[in-house]
Amino acid sequence: MEFSCTRQELTEGVSAVLRAVSARPPIPILTGIYMEVQESHLRLLATDMELGIEYTIPIRATQTGTTVVNAKIFSEMVRRLPDGPVTFRVDESHLLKVRFFGSELTLHTMNPLEFPVLPHIVEGQQISFTQGQFKEMTRLIGFAASTDESRPWFTGILWDLQVDHIKWIATDTHRLALLQGHYLEGSIQEERQIILSSKTLIDVARLLHDEESAIELTITKSQVLMETAQMRVILRIIEGQYPKYQQVIPKDYKTRITVKVKALLEAVDRAALASIGKEGSNIIKVTMEGNILTIRSNSPEVGHIHEEVFVDMDGESIPIAFNYRYLQEALKVLSVEDIHIDLTGPLVPGVIRPIGEERYLYLIVPVRTV
Amino acid sequence: MEFSCTRQELTEGVSAVLRAVSARPPIPILTGIYMEVQESHLRLLATDMELGIEYTIPIRATQTGTTVVNAKIFSEMVRRLPDGPVTFRVDESHLLKVRFFGSELTLHTMNPLEFPVLPHIVEGQQISFTQGQFKEMTRLIGFAASTDESRPWFTGILWDLQVDHIKWIATDTHRLALLQGHYLEGSIQEERQIILSSKTLIDVARLLHDEESAIELTITKSQVLMETAQMRVILRIIEGQYPKYQQVIPKDYKTRITVKVKALLEAVDRAALASIGKEGSNIIKVTMEGNILTIRSNSPEVGHIHEEVFVDMDGESIPIAFNYRYLQEALKVLSVEDIHIDLTGPLVPGVIRPIGEERYLYLIVPVRTV
Repeated sequence: MEFSCTRQELTEGVSAVLRAVSARPPIPILTGIYMEVQESHLRLLATDMELGIEYTIPIRATQTGTTVVNAKIFSEMVRRLPDGPVTFRVDESHLLKVRFFGSELTLHTMNPLEFPVLPHIVEGQQISFTQGQFKEMTRLIGFAASTDESRPWFTGILWDLQVDHIKWIATDTHRLALLQGHYLEGSIQEERQIILSSKTLIDVARLLHDEESAIELTITKSQVLMETAQMRVILRIIEGQYPKYQQVIPKDYKTRITVKVKALLEAVDRAALASIGKEGSNIIKVTMEGNILTIRSNSPEVGHIHEEVFVDMDGESIPIAFNYRYLQEALKVLSVEDIHIDLTGPLVPGVIRPIGEERYLYLIVPVRTV
Repeated sequence: MEFSCTRQELTEGVSAVLRAVSARPPIPILTGIYMEVQESHLRLLATDMELGIEYTIPIRATQTGTTVVNAKIFSEMVRRLPDGPVTFRVDESHLLKVRFFGSELTLHTMNPLEFPVLPHIVEGQQISFTQGQFKEMTRLIGFAASTDESRPWFTGILWDLQVDHIKWIATDTHRLALLQGHYLEGSIQEERQIILSSKTLIDVARLLHDEESAIELTITKSQVLMETAQMRVILRIIEGQYPKYQQVIPKDYKTRITVKVKALLEAVDRAALASIGKEGSNIIKVTMEGNILTIRSNSPEVGHIHEEVFVDMDGESIPIAFNYRYLQEALKVLSVEDIHIDLTGPLVPGVIRPIGEERYLYLIVPVRTV
């Protein structure tokens, strides 16, 4: 094989497929990136057997062929290439020669026949989103998933696939985020729920740059294929029983608080100071009276913190306590100015609803304090 | 004590003195920042007994006084303060109340009488630099010092104080950087050599923002006081015998190579690819012929790298090998376009001299290869 292209052309594709290279690959060949040179395109492919990413970039080929290069070494090399055209050639001795003005790098390669083929997905339910919508859904939901691998389903995002809409849900059992979205095209004939790795969905979202274009999904029994113009991602569905999330969302509320996100986030950030230090706690106590919401926290090491935030309150005062992190993380991803916080009782989950964005809700389980 | 100021006013001072707070303070009070409120100024002070930093900022005081606050907690709090005026007050119960619209943070304080007083330095040899020059000297020299604490003198920068000029030198025994500078004001009556912590000099350089203004030095037997308009730094001189650096600098050379810094650095960066992986080596082999300088590196895991760089060569070809890091680090800090590399033999240190900057030299000890 022999082709030429520039560093700029290679960089995006290499960094995309690199996300599918495991730090501890199940078989040695998966330390590599599979390269397939066609007439005018280079197809890059990497997989850890759970996730496969394929990226196609335009090149000028003089000889087609395939090879596998060590992903870490190749990506480090690409980063250091000069501006201008670079020639890549694999000769009979299976060495990859990388040439540009005055320089030649000779890299070892691996046997492309050993590289596992990605499953060929043709049939399945087909839907699509705009890339912008996919990114927004990932941003608003992904952070709420668990990182505890002992219950893998909670590390995922639940896609509740309805005929003409989808719900994205993530929870670590202390809080839950839910966003409803519509398909750009397609619909679901057979309604079902699937769980996908939140880490991978966040990775895929990072690779999307074209807000208006589509990301097309084909959903099979055990896998999801995601396609854009340059990229194909094949992702295994996580097995496991997701809890019935509808049952934990309070149907009603007794007290509705309306507050500015920025003011509340600043107050929570400062209240979090009490979590610094050896004896720090993550608990903030929230009370409200008239137009003032008061946040209190304290630690033997730091001292006391008393924060007041202007709010509108509709209903009676309900003292409640939260782990500040669950509040902070949600407030950070919201792009609206104002939210409702709906409370029912000191031990009933509070629900955040962005004003002007009825498709989203975020639920926090309160902490029992003495 | 009671005063008010804004986050912006406090931030710079707090982050400056924070550099003198040790992660493992010798006595508990040194986890703190000493605050002294005068009529229109707040004096902040921190020390780890080796280094003391004092920073003065303008405030509006209503009651003078002193206190000590935990450095980590206080700096985290300052970072999270809102825009607008903030009031600080220590009451009879020795609690610091921090107040702003609707909020009150109550922090524990420590006894200011326990805080060690910085030595009062009045006599000593006095010289000064512009802050810009001090920063340049630190940038060109600091990186060449050792990080091995078992020989503390090599972790420092040697100041060779001559009557009307100074030399800054650093070495880790594998390479040596030397820069000659002139005093802005003052002169040295009694010529001497002192060693100062390179880490601290780099920290001090980061705190200097006013290129044209002076940094004034008072040098005593065991300490150096550095002063700017806002800041006083007191630094202990490191004890130990520094090697006679003049003896290792080759007086002459056989071959002078002239090369562009950018082209050489890019080639060295790529040659460094061979150091990736378990069996990587840091060695690059350099040869030259005509107008081409060739850099070669290889590792069993990665492959071979062959880089060519255009040079002017005056003298015979001298094959030589270096640890690429020592070359890379020097090329990164240079701000000139072209350098000379002066060689004498395969086992004699090579010397880099920036063209148009005769005050600087950088010496690299070659690696013996088979």
